[in-house]
Amino acid sequence: MAGKSRTGNFFEDFRIGMLIAHPTPRTLTDGDRSLYIALTGSRDLLGSARTASEQAGLERQPLDGFLVFNLAFGKTVPDISLNAVANLGYADGRFLTPVHVGDTLRVESEIIGLRENSNGKSGVVYTRSTALNQHDQPVLTWVRWVMVRKRDPKAPAPAAEVPSLPAAVGADALAVPGYGPGVRKIAAMTGVSDFWEDYEAGERIDHPSAMTINDSDHSSATRLYQNTAKVHFDARMMAATPTGRRLVYGGHVISVARALAYDGLENVLGLLALNGGSHVAPTHAGDTVCCATTVVERIDLPHADVAALRLRTVAATGLDGAQQIVFPREGAGKDDAPGVVLDLDYTVAIPRKPKTTLSP
Amino acid sequence: MAGKSRTGNFFEDFRIGMLIAHPTPRTLTDGDRSLYIALTGSRDLLGSARTASEQAGLERQPLDGFLVFNLAFGKTVPDISLNAVANLGYADGRFLTPVHVGDTLRVESEIIGLRENSNGKSGVVYTRSTALNQHDQPVLTWVRWVMVRKRDPKAPAPAAEVPSLPAAVGADALAVPGYGPGVRKIAAMTGVSDFWEDYEAGERIDHPSAMTINDSDHSSATRLYQNTAKVHFDARMMAATPTGRRLVYGGHVISVARALAYDGLENVLGLLALNGGSHVAPTHAGDTVCCATTVVERIDLPHADVAALRLRTVAATGLDGAQQIVFPREGAGKDDAPGVVLDLDYTVAIPRKPKTTLSP
Amino acid sequence: MAGKSRTGNFFEDFRIGMLIAHPTPRTLTDGDRSLYIALTGSRDLLGSARTASEQAGLERQPLDGFLVFNLAFGKTVPDISLNAVANLGYADGRFLTPVHVGDTLRVESEIIGLRENSNGKSGVVYTRSTALNQHDQPVLTWVRWVMVRKRDPKAPAPAAEVPSLPAAVGADALAVPGYGPGVRKIAAMTGVSDFWEDYEAGERIDHPSAMTINDSDHSSATRLYQNTAKVHFDARMMAATPTGRRLVYGGHVISVARALAYDGLENVLGLLALNGGSHVAPTHAGDTVCCATTVVERIDLPHADVAALRLRTVAATGLDGAQQIVFPREGAGKDDAPGVVLDLDYTVAIPRKPKTTLSP
Repeated sequence: MAGKSRTGNFFEDFRIGMLIAHPTPRTLTDGDRSLYIALTGSRDLLGSARTASEQAGLERQPLDGFLVFNLAFGKTVPDISLNAVANLGYADGRFLTPVHVGDTLRVESEIIGLRENSNGKSGVVYTRSTALNQHDQPVLTWVRWVMVRKRDPKAPAPAAEVPSLPAAVGADALAVPGYGPGVRKIAAMTGVSDFWEDYEAGERIDHPSAMTINDSDHSSATRLYQNTAKVHFDARMMAATPTGRRLVYGGHVISVARALAYDGLENVLGLLALNGGSHVAPTHAGDTVCCATTVVERIDLPHADVAALRLRTVAATGLDGAQQIVFPREGAGKDDAPGVVLDLDYTVAIPRKPKTTLSP
Repeated sequence: MAGKSRTGNFFEDFRIGMLIAHPTPRTLTDGDRSLYIALTGSRDLLGSARTASEQAGLERQPLDGFLVFNLAFGKTVPDISLNAVANLGYADGRFLTPVHVGDTLRVESEIIGLRENSNGKSGVVYTRSTALNQHDQPVLTWVRWVMVRKRDPKAPAPAAEVPSLPAAVGADALAVPGYGPGVRKIAAMTGVSDFWEDYEAGERIDHPSAMTINDSDHSSATRLYQNTAKVHFDARMMAATPTGRRLVYGGHVISVARALAYDGLENVLGLLALNGGSHVAPTHAGDTVCCATTVVERIDLPHADVAALRLRTVAATGLDGAQQIVFPREGAGKDDAPGVVLDLDYTVAIPRKPKTTLSP
Repeated sequence: MAGKSRTGNFFEDFRIGMLIAHPTPRTLTDGDRSLYIALTGSRDLLGSARTASEQAGLERQPLDGFLVFNLAFGKTVPDISLNAVANLGYADGRFLTPVHVGDTLRVESEIIGLRENSNGKSGVVYTRSTALNQHDQPVLTWVRWVMVRKRDPKAPAPAAEVPSLPAAVGADALAVPGYGPGVRKIAAMTGVSDFWEDYEAGERIDHPSAMTINDSDHSSATRLYQNTAKVHFDARMMAATPTGRRLVYGGHVISVARALAYDGLENVLGLLALNGGSHVAPTHAGDTVCCATTVVERIDLPHADVAALRLRTVAATGLDGAQQIVFPREGAGKDDAPGVVLDLDYTVAIPRKPKTTLSP
C-alpha cells in the first residue's frame, strides 16, 4: 500500500515542459496578517494599517508581499522540493496583483530547466511558478532553481537545459498598484521624510536591529505557509546531518531580513519584483540575524506619484551588527563575506517626494 | 480568602447525573483558523481554502474538526480535569454541525460514570460533554474518562458506575454536512485521485513526514484552547515529576498526527466521529512525532456523493519513520508497540469516486 | 549614509513639551485577538466571547485592554525607549474608549518630565502617551517614565523637571463603557457568582495557576506589538550582559499575570485604569510566573449595573506558588519580596450583584 505514502518527486521524475497544479489552495485571513507580524516582526506600513493603505489610495489593504511569496512558495514544496538538497536561487519574480484578506491562492509550476550534477546523485530543477487568485488572475510569478536528489543514481539523465534568466526585472515589467496622489503624504504616518529622490545608487543602509530566531518562530511560520519540507520540522532526521539541527526555512530569513530593513526604508509601499536571491548559508534556531541594504538602482516609473528602488539586502548571523556585514562579491568565496546567510535582490515601490507647493 | 482561589473539582466532588455548564464561551475567529495551521501544520482542505468548501457545496467554510474538539475540550478542563492524573480515553464523539468563524461555542457536561481506584487516592470520572453554538445547536458531543485525584483519600467513594459505551459511532449516527455533487471533483484541488472506493479495510498508510514539537508550539496551542491544565504550563511544578518536564497536551498530539496524516488521505472532507482514543504515553517538547494509519472500515452512507472511512491513526515518537510503527494490540503491553503515544480511532467523510461519464 | 540608520533618541535629545507622533499606525484584527489568547493564556470574558459582550449590553466585542495597551506602548518604543536601560513606572493610565477589530490605532507622546541621573550617563524621561483610533478619538492615555542612556555623557542636561502624578486614577476620571442591565447576569457564562459587593478592600486572592514563559512566546507577543526594543530580540547582544539572556518584555509579563488572575476575578469586564506599575526585576524565558492579587479599594461608580475594583496584582518567579508571594512594602528592599517581578496597580469594571428579585 505504499501507493498512498507519497514521497514527492525526485530529479529523474521531472521533464522539461511538465506542468504541475500544486495541491491545496489557501484562503488568506486576517489571522495570517497578524501571525506574519508576530513571527517576523514586520512593520510593513500598508500591511500594518488600513489608514495607510487608504492614504496611499488603495481601496483595500494589501497583504505583505513576502507573506504572499512564502505562502505561494510553500504550495510548490510537496511537488518540487520535498526532498531537496538546497534551494539555489530565484529570478524574475514579479508581484502582479495585490493580495487581500479573503483571497484564495492556488499555484501552478512549469519545469523550465534541468541539469544533472556531475556526481550523478542529484540535479538542478528550474521552475516557473505562478500564484493565481480565485478570479484566476496571476498575483505573483517567479523562477527558482533547486537541487533535487535522484531516487536512483543510475536513472538516465535528461539532456541539460538551462533557461536564460534576466539579471533583474525590467522597469517595463513592473506592475505598480493603483496608488493615488495621497501616497506622497505617508511621511505623516512613518515619521520619516526619505522618498524616492532621497535614495542614491550605491548608498548603504545598516539596519540597526537584530533578531534571534527561535525554533517555534521558524517552524510556526513555515507551517503557516503549509511548507512541508522535512529539513525544517524533523529534528530527529536532522540530528544525523552535519549541523545536527533543523534548518530555518530560507523564506523565513527573507521575511526577518525584510522586517529588520524597515528601519531606513520606512516609506516603502510594497514589493514589485524579486530579481534574485541566494541562501548563501543555512540558518539555525538561536542564530541572530542582522542585515544591511545597498541601493542598486533608482528606477523611474510611468506613475505620477510612485517610483521604484532596486535594493540588495544581505543578512548575516554571528556578527556584532550590520556594520560588520561584507557584501559578497560575484565569484568570491564565502570567506570573503563571513556570516552571510542571505543575499537578496528585489525592487520596491516608494513614493516620490511630496510637492513642496502642497501644504501638508 | 481561599474562597476565590478555586482549585477545581476532586474525585469526591463528582456525582452521577451532575450537570456542569462550563465557564467562558469562546467566539471562533479567522485568527484561530490561521493559528491552527501555524501550530499544527494542518493542511485540511476545506479548512484551508474557501474555494474548496464552495466546490464541496458548502455555503460557508468550516473550521477543522479537531480545532473545534480541542477548543471544546479546553472548556471542560477547569471543572473536570484541572488536577487530573491522566486523560484515559474517548468514546462516542460525534461532529453534529459544522462550525464557522464567528460562531460562539459553550460547553456542558454530564457526569455519567464514577469508579474509585483501588488505591483510594483517585478515581475515574466519565463525562458526556456537548459543545453548543450561539443558536443552542449541538455541534459536537463526546464521552471521555479521566483519572482525577481525591482531595481527601478518606472521603467516601460513590458506588462504582461505569457507562456502557459503543466501540464506534454507528453509521446511522453520523451527521454528514450538506455536501453537493461538486465534491467529487475536489481532486482538482488536492492533486490526488484516491476516493472512498480506493481505500480498503486493513490498508495501511505510512505518512511520510514527521514533526518535532517545540515548547512554544504546544503551549501556544493549548492556551489558544483556553485549556488551563497545569501539567502543560508549569515547568517548575513539572520539574519535580519523574519526567521532569511539561507534558504536551494530548489534543495537540492529535492535531499534529491528523496534520501529518494529510499525506495519503488528501481528499478527506472532515471529521464525522471520534470513536475512541488513547494517549498511550506522554509527549514532551523535543519529541519528533510520526504516524501511520490503517483503514478500519469503509462505511457507506445515505449520501449520493460522500461516504465514510473509519480510520485508526497511531502516532509515535523516537522512531526513524512511520514504517517502524507497530500498531498496539488489544491487551498487549506497551513494549509491543515502542514509542507509541497516541492510538486514535475516528471516522471521516470522503467523496465517492467521480463518475467517469462526467467530463472533468 | 548613517543618516538612514536611525538609532532612536538619547536622553539629551528630549525636551520638555516635545510632541512626538509615533510612526506606523496599526489596524487591529481578529488575528490579534486569537494571538493574544494563544500567547498569554487570556480568558478575558468579553474578549473571548461575542455572546458575553452582547449579554453585557455592548454593541461590539471589545479587545482586551492590555492587548491595546501593549500595542500602543510598542508604538512609542522606537522614539522613546529603543535604547532604554529600564522601564521604571506607569501612572494615570486611562482606558477611554473600547477598541474593536478593524480599528486603527496611532499613538502620540508629549515629553512631560526629564531628570538626569547623578552618574551623568543616563536620565529619566517622563512621557504622556495617547493612543487614538481612526476617528481621532483617544482610546487610551498613560504616563510612563523610563531610564534612557545619553549618547554623549558630556552633553548638557536640561533642568530637572518631574511631573506630579496621581497615585491612582480618581473615580470621576474613569470612563465606563455603555454596559446594559444584562451585565449582571454574566455569572451564567463564568460560572462564578462573585460580583462587586463580594470583594473587600484588603482581600487577597492567590491565583492557582502558573505559566512558564518560552522564548518564542514572549518574542512573538512583542513582535505582535511591533515593539522593537533590542533587549527582547537580540540574544547575541544580550549574551554580553550580566544575565546573558534576552529580557522578556514587561508588558508580556503584565498580560500573563492578568491572564493568570482570571481565576478569582472571573466576572471582571475590562480595564478602566492603570494606576501604576513597576517591573521590579527582569523576567527571562524559562521563568515560571505565578501571581496574587489584593483588592485595594472598592470604587462605586455612577452606573446602575457596574462598579469598579482597584486591584494590586503582584507576579513572581522562582516560587512554589502564589501563596509564597510577599507583597513589596513601600521603600523596602527587594529581599523582602523574593522573586517579585511585577507590581501592578489597576482598576477594573465588574458588575454589581444581580438583583435577587429578578428571575434568572
